[in-house]
Amino acid sequence: MSNISKEVRVAVDTMGGDYAPSEIIKGAVMAARNDNIEIILVGPTDIVSRELTKYNGDCSYLPIRRVQADEVIKEGEHPALAIHHKPNASIVVAMELLKAGEADAVISAGPTGAVSVSAIRSNGLLPGIERPVVCVPLVGLAPDTVLVDGGANVDCKPQQLLSFAVIGFFYAKKLLNVSKPRVALLSTGSEEDKGSRLTQESYTLLRNSNLNFIGNIEGSDVLSGKANVIVCDGIVGNVLMKFYESMGHYIVRWLKGRLGNLPLVGPIKKLLNQMGSFTKMTSDESGGGGLLWGVNNVVQVLHGNSRAKQVSKAIGRAKYAVETDLIGCLKSELASIGGEHNICLNNRIRSVDNSPQIKKLSATR
Amino acid sequence: MSNISKEVRVAVDTMGGDYAPSEIIKGAVMAARNDNIEIILVGPTDIVSRELTKYNGDCSYLPIRRVQADEVIKEGEHPALAIHHKPNASIVVAMELLKAGEADAVISAGPTGAVSVSAIRSNGLLPGIERPVVCVPLVGLAPDTVLVDGGANVDCKPQQLLSFAVIGFFYAKKLLNVSKPRVALLSTGSEEDKGSRLTQESYTLLRNSNLNFIGNIEGSDVLSGKANVIVCDGIVGNVLMKFYESMGHYIVRWLKGRLGNLPLVGPIKKLLNQMGSFTKMTSDESGGGGLLWGVNNVVQVLHGNSRAKQVSKAIGRAKYAVETDLIGCLKSELASIGGEHNICLNNRIRSVDNSPQIKKLSATR
Repeated sequence: MSNISKEVRVAVDTMGGDYAPSEIIKGAVMAARNDNIEIILVGPTDIVSRELTKYNGDCSYLPIRRVQADEVIKEGEHPALAIHHKPNASIVVAMELLKAGEADAVISAGPTGAVSVSAIRSNGLLPGIERPVVCVPLVGLAPDTVLVDGGANVDCKPQQLLSFAVIGFFYAKKLLNVSKPRVALLSTGSEEDKGSRLTQESYTLLRNSNLNFIGNIEGSDVLSGKANVIVCDGIVGNVLMKFYESMGHYIVRWLKGRLGNLPLVGPIKKLLNQMGSFTKMTSDESGGGGLLWGVNNVVQVLHGNSRAKQVSKAIGRAKYAVETDLIGCLKSELASIGGEHNICLNNRIRSVDNSPQIKKLSATR
Repeated sequence: MSNISKEVRVAVDTMGGDYAPSEIIKGAVMAARNDNIEIILVGPTDIVSRELTKYNGDCSYLPIRRVQADEVIKEGEHPALAIHHKPNASIVVAMELLKAGEADAVISAGPTGAVSVSAIRSNGLLPGIERPVVCVPLVGLAPDTVLVDGGANVDCKPQQLLSFAVIGFFYAKKLLNVSKPRVALLSTGSEEDKGSRLTQESYTLLRNSNLNFIGNIEGSDVLSGKANVIVCDGIVGNVLMKFYESMGHYIVRWLKGRLGNLPLVGPIKKLLNQMGSFTKMTSDESGGGGLLWGVNNVVQVLHGNSRAKQVSKAIGRAKYAVETDLIGCLKSELASIGGEHNICLNNRIRSVDNSPQIKKLSATR
């Protein structure tokens, strides 16, 4: 890749997240020590500068810049309204840097809704994509499987689930190295008529898409490897993702209780350590959040409760996405899907491009 | 209890389930060997009789009766239409026996929708309950927690989630022995505005209900014990329940893979056995299905893939529900909730009683 040695400029929303700004800035400083990276800390510069003094001048030689943004969007604010009324919010300013080509990626642990809306508003969506989406690889027990959507979208429509499937298909091919990913819909039973109106209507769209759709799977199949791409709305996906990330912890606790007086040494200790590493792995890797897929630029969202380590990792992932031109590859995939796999999706994409929703969106850009 | 030594008559839908009629009848024969139980096998008597010959006349001394029903409702049929057009379907005949007082309970592994509709049609709903619901105790890791709904309802309304909460509250008090259950809504974040329109509107209803509502919890809190009653729609609940039941299996597989050449003896074996028993426990106990709470009689649903053992256990649970008069107790609880806990719910119950939906339902009874 031609730009592999070029510096990647990551704009960090310093004011988003439960532990902002201190843990966010700490994570950004950690990431800035890596090669070929420049950090742009977006937020109130007085607060950011005060935080940076914690690192005893270590930062003076690191590639860190500050960009002023004196407003903050908090959890609970209506995303679109908040963005409209706070043009100087840290997340909005970061997205504008990205749009203007002054940054190559944005990361934020702020409210996903607000990050999502401001990302779409400033940077637009890829052709055919109705809403951005979070992909959750089931690191650990199902390494060839990605769950999509992980929580960026609630109250979804079937067309949106179809675009989640397209993005998941790309993700599984590109990042999980599955040559022909199997796509499934998560529902309450394997039959077509099972589940909600949403899953029933999505089933029809997916079946007609030729996206290597294998039908519905149930909760018991999630970890089975039957499907490489598991499609669901953001409520189901978010609950399941967070449950998955937490379960190692509870199983270790339960096992320790059951083992009673057995000494925690030797093989037992090794086994519990394995379980511990499982917990760590799921929560560090998939738990850090992910790329906001479908946005026409690299935007990385994090869980609100992310700490420095997750922030630093997310910056690393954003850098990787820029260096490997993931967005450009997805764009090509979307363009080729019409011819190669999916006539219906192509029709759908065309109709979506002409929808009043997208026109309205374009008008606001 | 006065009727503890009385025979409990359980009508078994022999034609519902993936392994019907053979595994259903096998399980019923197993259950018939217990004290104080009479089994009524509902289905085509020629098929039922042929199945019974497998037990070499063992059945002749067991309290088993046959009741003719020559139609079957299959997966994929529209529940209400199927019931209307097949008055002789096994599930419909079983429900009519219950209504007529010729049976004390019904069990079925048939399509939940059809079981649910025919249960409501023949036996009605308790006052204030909008839809029947399946409670899923999180046997194993969270013994003081019940998830509701486990899959009887999709496309729910907020008022329905409120009635799920009432039933869950009763379940936690009565069957998990929690004196003042904490009720939570399962969503994508702890804040009131998180989640879908459904969770947001349900939050308001639950907050005004004084049902000891502690707010939203996320997927990572499900096993934490924070809440005793976790309220969600049937899609989220069903996916999560089945995922929970399956995860022990996948974790054992993963652990064995990670342990590599370590000999599976001694403490390691003990630990893996513990994990195995965890898997068994979750799939046997919560996995068997459950009572269809809210119906004005004892109706037990099972997973479609239930085998003889689950059928036998389900019959045992139905017997327990009859002997302890669980439905009567829930009725009293619902009546008292207005005074003790929940003015708003009471209002809601009144308004529901007068709703055209319920009037229409009553008219069909």
